[in-house]
This record gives sequence, C-alpha cells and structure tokens, in this order.
Amino acid sequence: MNKPFDVKNPDYEQTVRDSFAKQGLMQHLSATLTEVSPGQMTISVPYSPNFTQQHGFFHAGVATSIVDVACGYAAYSLMPPSSEVLTIEFKANFVSPAIGQQLMAKGRVIKPGRTITVCQGDVYCVNDGEQKLCATMLASLICKRTE
Amino acid sequence: MNKPFDVKNPDYEQTVRDSFAKQGLMQHLSATLTEVSPGQMTISVPYSPNFTQQHGFFHAGVATSIVDVACGYAAYSLMPPSSEVLTIEFKANFVSPAIGQQLMAKGRVIKPGRTITVCQGDVYCVNDGEQKLCATMLASLICKRTE
Amino acid sequence: MNKPFDVKNPDYEQTVRDSFAKQGLMQHLSATLTEVSPGQMTISVPYSPNFTQQHGFFHAGVATSIVDVACGYAAYSLMPPSSEVLTIEFKANFVSPAIGQQLMAKGRVIKPGRTITVCQGDVYCVNDGEQKLCATMLASLICKRTE
Amino acid sequence: MNKPFDVKNPDYEQTVRDSFAKQGLMQHLSATLTEVSPGQMTISVPYSPNFTQQHGFFHAGVATSIVDVACGYAAYSLMPPSSEVLTIEFKANFVSPAIGQQLMAKGRVIKPGRTITVCQGDVYCVNDGEQKLCATMLASLICKRTE
Repeated sequence: MNKPFDVKNPDYEQTVRDSFAKQGLMQHLSATLTEVSPGQMTISVPYSPNFTQQHGFFHAGVATSIVDVACGYAAYSLMPPSSEVLTIEFKANFVSPAIGQQLMAKGRVIKPGRTITVCQGDVYCVNDGEQKLCATMLASLICKRTE
Repeated sequence: MNKPFDVKNPDYEQTVRDSFAKQGLMQHLSATLTEVSPGQMTISVPYSPNFTQQHGFFHAGVATSIVDVACGYAAYSLMPPSSEVLTIEFKANFVSPAIGQQLMAKGRVIKPGRTITVCQGDVYCVNDGEQKLCATMLASLICKRTE
Repeated sequence: MNKPFDVKNPDYEQTVRDSFAKQGLMQHLSATLTEVSPGQMTISVPYSPNFTQQHGFFHAGVATSIVDVACGYAAYSLMPPSSEVLTIEFKANFVSPAIGQQLMAKGRVIKPGRTITVCQGDVYCVNDGEQKLCATMLASLICKRTE
Repeated sequence: MNKPFDVKNPDYEQTVRDSFAKQGLMQHLSATLTEVSPGQMTISVPYSPNFTQQHGFFHAGVATSIVDVACGYAAYSLMPPSSEVLTIEFKANFVSPAIGQQLMAKGRVIKPGRTITVCQGDVYCVNDGEQKLCATMLASLICKRTE
C-alpha cells in the first residue's frame, strides 16, 4: 500500500498547475495550490466573509469545492498525458465546524486505476498553525483519453 | 409517501430566508432562493466565468454548494422554531457536464425526523428554459435545538 | 427524463436471470428476482432469523446486498451483449427500522452511460401488503466489455 | 488525532460481543469478531460458495455487511452504557475484486461524538496471510440513549 505511485506523465506538475489556473471558481475562492506531488495535492483558502455559511464559519460548499479539486488533481497527476479527469461522484462527512483563519484540503490517491481512481480527502481548519479536521471525503474519478 | 409534511414552525419561510441571507457564499455565488415550500427548496445561479472549472463549465463545487443549501433548508423548513440545521454528510453524483445559462438546484425531504432528516437533491442546467439533470445528491441533516 | 431506455441486448432478461442464478449469496439470502424490466429490477427476501441484526429486524447488510444487486442488474439490462457490470461504489441511507415479513428492493437507472451508469435504489419493508421505505441508495456502476 | 479514545463503558467489550452474538446474519455469514478494541473492530469471514457473486468472488454485499458491522461496533465501543448504535448511512467504494480465502473488515472511529460518530472502514482479501484492499467505507452512526 505504501509503494510509490507510477508516474505516467513526466510533466504532471505543469499539467496540474495549468488546469488549476483555468478554474474560475478557484480564483473566485482565492484558492492556491500549495502542494503538487504524485498522487497527492493540497489546496488552501484564506478566511473571507464571502466564504461563509449563516454563522460566519467557512461554508461546507467551500470545503467541498477545494477537497474535490484536491482529489481530482491527485488522481490526474497519475494519469497519462493526453487525458482528462472527471469526478464521477464524491461523499463528504462534516465532522466539526469549519472555524479558522484558513481552510486546507488534502487529496490523495487510495487506488489508482486505468479507468477509475479512488481518492480520499481531508479538510482542516488552520488556526495559528494548528490544524483541526473538519471534513473528510471519499471520491471516484474517471480518466478520459483525449486522443 | 405523498402525504403533506407536518410544519412545526409557522414562520418557516422567513426563518429560511433570513438564514439564507446571512450566507456570504450564496451572495458570492449570486445565488437566489427561487422556491421556499415545506420540505422543498429551489436555488438558482446564473452563469459567470467566476463559477467555472477548467473547461468553462459550471464547477462541481458550485453545483454541490447550492444543492447542499437547498437540501439543508428543505430539512430546516420542517424543523421546530428554536432549532438549527447542520449537514452531517452528503454524496453527489455528477451525471452530465454542467453547461448552461443557469444552474438550478432542487432539494426535497425524503424522510423527516426528530433528529435526522434525509434529503434528495437534483441539479439541472438550464438553457433557453430547458432543464437537463447534471447532478444528484443524497444528504443527511441533523436538527440541533437552540433552547 | 421519462423517455424509454434504449435496449442494446435483446436477451437482456435471460442475461440478467442467468447471472443472478450464479450469485451464491442471493440463494443464501433466499432472494428472488421479482421484476426484470429494462432499467429497473426488483428483488425480494422473506423474513428469517438468519437475516437479522441484534434486535431481530432485517440486517442493513441484507437490505444493502439486495438493493446493490437490483441497481447492478438495472444497469446491466441496458448494457450491450458481451459486457459485464461492476459496482464502483454506492451510498445507502437507512431511514427507518427494517421490520417486516419481507424486504423488497427496487433499483432503477437514473442515467445510463457508455461507461458509467448511475442508479437509484429503494428498499421497502412489506407487511400485509403494505410497503414502507426503510433504505435508499445512490450507486455508480461501470460497464466492462468482455470482447 | 492520535490521542487515545475516551472509554465511557467499562464493559464495552462484553457489550459489543453480546450484541454481535445476537446478529443472525453474522452467524449466517460465519463471521467472527477477531478484534475488539476501543474505537476499532475487526471481523473476518472465510470463503464459501454461499457468499459469492456471479464470478465466484466474495459478494460486495458480504464485504459491506461485515465492514458496516465493524464500523458500528467501533462506534458503539466508545458510547456510554445504556445506549444503542444505529447506522444512519454509509458509502463504500469497491477498489479490487474480492478474491481470497478470507475477507477481513476493519472499522475505526475517525470522529467520536455525543450524538454522531464518523467511522472509516477497510475490507481486505486475505490469501496465504497476505492482505489486499478490496473495499473502503465512510459511515455515520448515531447514539440512541435507552434510559
């Protein structure tokens, strides 16, 4: 389970960064890609009143958006060149209120596959450098060949 | 299954509208509450380049955000006064690309409960008045008494 | 959404019945296929102390097993000959205790696809002919070509 | 995240074993409770033609049944005396064919709670002592006080 992943796209990092830069929503949420590794991604969002639910905490929709993207690019980083990644589905549990200066989502591949890749994601609230788990995700992604 | 829901909060509509108005993210996504009924809510979002994924379609995060909120308020509309609603978890399937002039999310209660309410949600792309299903959700919500 | 499904395998009913007959678990659970239609299946299980959880009700595992199979064959009925169906994942909500003389699971295709098919399933407790919803499922299936 | 769990029921092991013994389905599946720890359970099932899907592999329903039970008792082990545990919902991904001499399910608590507990489960195929992940689960459980 802990053997390193097989990287099929030597330019995976640039491929991921280019795709991320095209996502209008990620800019609208001030999201940044803070880690790009084979099979693992981290995305962070600073607190803003624009990102809140009714009690002023981070909205579950923000947590879900960034952890879906982190899982998607974690899967994409292991796919061959000339492919696209699509989210088939995901499920998220919200385990504590998302109160923090920052929201940080980590996505990692549990099981890579030629067609289907399964990822696990976690979202943490960050306060003065301390991280607290606020949501966890299980997601299925599909690889679409583009040539 | 088709009997009308029991409404415990006579001011459910105002309660829902007031809570929705406090969600910074809903404003940031230009979302409007277009239907408020007992056990059923509809939320719409117009297209904007700010709401896109890498191909210029609506981002799954936008679809998920509004259908989660629609399910949450569908559940909340059936809860007693002096209560809050929290999302325990949800699962969403993305069944076709979210291409459209508008995204419309409908949430409805499948099973109301004293503590746990289960909702089903659908997201449609709207183009020239025609609706096409692009995502579907199954969600669990919890009622927290505030007094 | 209500247009009839496109049937690619004229022998879909025999294909489904033959595959069902090979499932050792379905026999071990006394399960019978009570409806075989394009995109829709029904499976029933009579009550037995062998199928219970700790309070003597039907076990969630029995409900899940038969509704997964109902969703799987609902999807399979729309797939071409020379293909196999596999469950990628499912999510089930348990909305009321599964008390009854019989458990009946219905699976139906929400969105057929060349590769991925999405199904929705419901499980009912049956008592003196009356049905009560006890679980609901959302599932993703994949079509594998065998030639 | 790694601090030991707070055990509220000093007799948790006996409580779990007594409840497990009452589950008719677990006996019908020849399932045994091979680990009972605070917040973590393991359940195993030997291969039998009675537990198969159409290709002779372990049925997804068997894998789901035992990992649901493992997650349920993992949650229950941290609940106070005079309480019951119920599964609200779960989601399972099937990541490889369940071929093996034995199926082994591990459930562990990710987030204990007064009302809601979230668990993560994994199912492994065991062949000549070697384990291979075949399914993974994310589940929400609720604590019901019985007095």
